[in-house]
Amino acid sequence: MPELMTPAIILVAPQMGENIGAAARAMANFNLEDLRLIAPRDGWPNDVATANAVGALDILKPVQLFDHTADALKEFHTIYATTARPRDMRKKVYTPREAAKNIAVDQSNGKRSAALFGGERAGLSNDDIALAHHIISVPVNPKFASLNLAQSVLLMAHEINLTTDKTTPVHMPTGDSALATHAEFDEFITRLEEELQGHNFFRNPDMKPTMMRNIRNLFSRTDLTQQEIRTLHGILSALIGKKIN
Amino acid sequence: MPELMTPAIILVAPQMGENIGAAARAMANFNLEDLRLIAPRDGWPNDVATANAVGALDILKPVQLFDHTADALKEFHTIYATTARPRDMRKKVYTPREAAKNIAVDQSNGKRSAALFGGERAGLSNDDIALAHHIISVPVNPKFASLNLAQSVLLMAHEINLTTDKTTPVHMPTGDSALATHAEFDEFITRLEEELQGHNFFRNPDMKPTMMRNIRNLFSRTDLTQQEIRTLHGILSALIGKKIN
Repeated sequence: MPELMTPAIILVAPQMGENIGAAARAMANFNLEDLRLIAPRDGWPNDVATANAVGALDILKPVQLFDHTADALKEFHTIYATTARPRDMRKKVYTPREAAKNIAVDQSNGKRSAALFGGERAGLSNDDIALAHHIISVPVNPKFASLNLAQSVLLMAHEINLTTDKTTPVHMPTGDSALATHAEFDEFITRLEEELQGHNFFRNPDMKPTMMRNIRNLFSRTDLTQQEIRTLHGILSALIGKKIN
Repeated sequence: MPELMTPAIILVAPQMGENIGAAARAMANFNLEDLRLIAPRDGWPNDVATANAVGALDILKPVQLFDHTADALKEFHTIYATTARPRDMRKKVYTPREAAKNIAVDQSNGKRSAALFGGERAGLSNDDIALAHHIISVPVNPKFASLNLAQSVLLMAHEINLTTDKTTPVHMPTGDSALATHAEFDEFITRLEEELQGHNFFRNPDMKPTMMRNIRNLFSRTDLTQQEIRTLHGILSALIGKKIN
């Protein structure tokens, strides 16, 4: 992804440095780098924001400051307005996930996107929303819809990041030990069966095949490493050995 | 979804009331209600947490307090440990999205899940992680992996909520006006064509079909409401009328 193409996050009239800093922190976590501020209440730079960004402002491109929303939007092709309460405006309303997909598709077509977030007290004005092509609204509990500015940026940044993230959805670290082969697994099960036979575990010989199948299923339900097979052999050796007192 | 089945969020040795409150707030936004605390540094209840929860503690079930992690886990079937740095333990590592899917599937099979989150300074201990079946790790920028406790809870709650949320990914509010029918749309286009013809817009008659097709495409690219069709008729009437000075 070309560096200059990632979507911008634009905070319109943010009030609290805590939220500006937390928004920057969220962006850096999720590989966004273009933060713009429209008329922040306490000016810019802002020491409280810097403290709450915990280093994120060094990762992002230099924050750009504007007096008016429209001035910050000039080079973008698709603008999203984030609002909890979609006004009675004829614009498509996207979930963050669907908007993130759109942003990724647009980006692959050479179109840059920006997402507007309103200030803490009143959100975006109708005039700001009118500048946008589309609306983003986070699906929240209708009985408790209370996301703050930084939380909204975090969710959006997370969704944007996931459209390009290559993390395997599920993986199993094997540490330093390789996974056991079927032969290694089988050798343990065979040894276990012999020891159980020798210790009169199978009182009813007719049931032995079923019991062994259940035991095999129990141990094979998860991948075992070679180290874990060695541990199981060790347990077996210990249990069949003499008690030391 | 039966009320008692939703997954629990368990904060182990949380330090700051701000984060406990923000976690509760995140949960209430995303329809979670079972918050448990293991040995919170400042005890419980905590005025700072209550202030930062902005009412969420009244939405959740009463917060449960425990001295030891294991005590909080008794009724659960599947435990997830959230950690930024999966230790060298043989457990499956899930993204929040994949874990949320699993939690939903388990829930539909009558299995309850819980997600453990460690305290601000050191995260979960190895002993706490050993209590879990699986690990959740948020995919973040490897150069800036810095999610705080409440942010991690927010992302996980968001993902869990989306597994059951019924919000249409994209929708277009029509406000008080119904969408225009094709006939209403066509009536406007026909009127526009007649007026353009009368005003000598089609200087080259051969090009008229192409130009009209382009004009039709321009107006039909988005769904128009009946009110918007009326507005377009009004614009047309105004433009063909006499200038008032």
